[in-house]
Amino acid sequence: MKLLITSGGTTEKIDTVRGITNHSTGRLGAIIAQKFLNQGHDVTLVTTKSAIKPHQHSHLTTIDITTVADLMAVLENEVPKHQVLIHSMAVSDYTPVYMTDFESVNESDDLSQFLHHQNDQGKISSQSDYQVLFLKKTPKVISYVKQWHPQIHLFGFKLLVDVAKEELIKVARESLKKNKADYILANDLKDITDKGHKALLVSETQVEQADTKEAIAQLIYEKVSQL
Amino acid sequence: MKLLITSGGTTEKIDTVRGITNHSTGRLGAIIAQKFLNQGHDVTLVTTKSAIKPHQHSHLTTIDITTVADLMAVLENEVPKHQVLIHSMAVSDYTPVYMTDFESVNESDDLSQFLHHQNDQGKISSQSDYQVLFLKKTPKVISYVKQWHPQIHLFGFKLLVDVAKEELIKVARESLKKNKADYILANDLKDITDKGHKALLVSETQVEQADTKEAIAQLIYEKVSQL
Repeated sequence: MKLLITSGGTTEKIDTVRGITNHSTGRLGAIIAQKFLNQGHDVTLVTTKSAIKPHQHSHLTTIDITTVADLMAVLENEVPKHQVLIHSMAVSDYTPVYMTDFESVNESDDLSQFLHHQNDQGKISSQSDYQVLFLKKTPKVISYVKQWHPQIHLFGFKLLVDVAKEELIKVARESLKKNKADYILANDLKDITDKGHKALLVSETQVEQADTKEAIAQLIYEKVSQL
Repeated sequence: MKLLITSGGTTEKIDTVRGITNHSTGRLGAIIAQKFLNQGHDVTLVTTKSAIKPHQHSHLTTIDITTVADLMAVLENEVPKHQVLIHSMAVSDYTPVYMTDFESVNESDDLSQFLHHQNDQGKISSQSDYQVLFLKKTPKVISYVKQWHPQIHLFGFKLLVDVAKEELIKVARESLKKNKADYILANDLKDITDKGHKALLVSETQVEQADTKEAIAQLIYEKVSQL
């Protein structure tokens, strides 16, 4: 089977020296990739430079990306060539538009102008005590997947912070519907520690729990094997 | 001799899943550290998780930090114990204070209130098309070094983007004075490529050029040897 897996976290540039990064070690994606490689499957891993990678393998192809725009372009090309997408990458929700001194913003009588400005310095410099960064929403990459390839089996991921289990399941079910996903792996940052990684694999009808990254990989592997 | 070297780039948190990172591979700091280790000196390297590290060495101590506040605390402690500080780390100029929807900012008649707000969500979520992030200046760590240890020999670094050589020298000389540094290694992002790394080592009376990371390390090594 040909699997497409994403891992790591995207970075959106503020200027040539700074960016906003979604932190993700890439460890879970690497463990999932390794699991499928060990079982003889072909894996294309779309990942980021600093993410943890699986061991080199003749059935592994790795594509490095940085931004949401990179991810969009690569997935549009790769999704139609694969049977399963396991989308564990932490994708930036917002991308920088314009950064300026607080004073300029405070004195302006039309803040919406800043949503259409662009910084022309390579490195935005300032002497001001405060700066203001305007950001805009990025495209929801996961929502395009089934348009690109209606038959692909889609495993989405949802990371929340410090919520109840019911909320995790509710948000996962909403994401299932909105993105026509087959499964959502829902997890809470407070349950990701050195000792374990608790997560719920949520489908329309089922909720199954895993308590370690290896158990999550095993659970996803079983679901893919049943396809 | 006991040298303190900083490398890599700091990250300032927006929330538990996102941060603003100053990109720096840490390669130059690692090469400088290696140079001094190879010559039998003791090196304390203050660096970041994703930075390139020198090889393990019995005379090397490594301290990992993330934020400007971490750096401040570690250097306050370490600077008095060393004879030379080579401060090549890319340090964040600004740190996030508060992030909110564009609408909330646009409707407010007192923007300064946002400079004193704090986000209470672990992961700031939003449905808005635009968000606004308020940031405040970080303390200039380099300006404290000579207060902590007036006798330390201080090598500062200055990275500009796409400026003339005269401007690089001018900014370096200003930094020399302001921070009571002995040397400033001034470089331009456009001159840092796969092939080379052009930089100027600027003192009050001299400007010397190096064209590779190895040549920069050699130049700094020679200056330290003459102390």
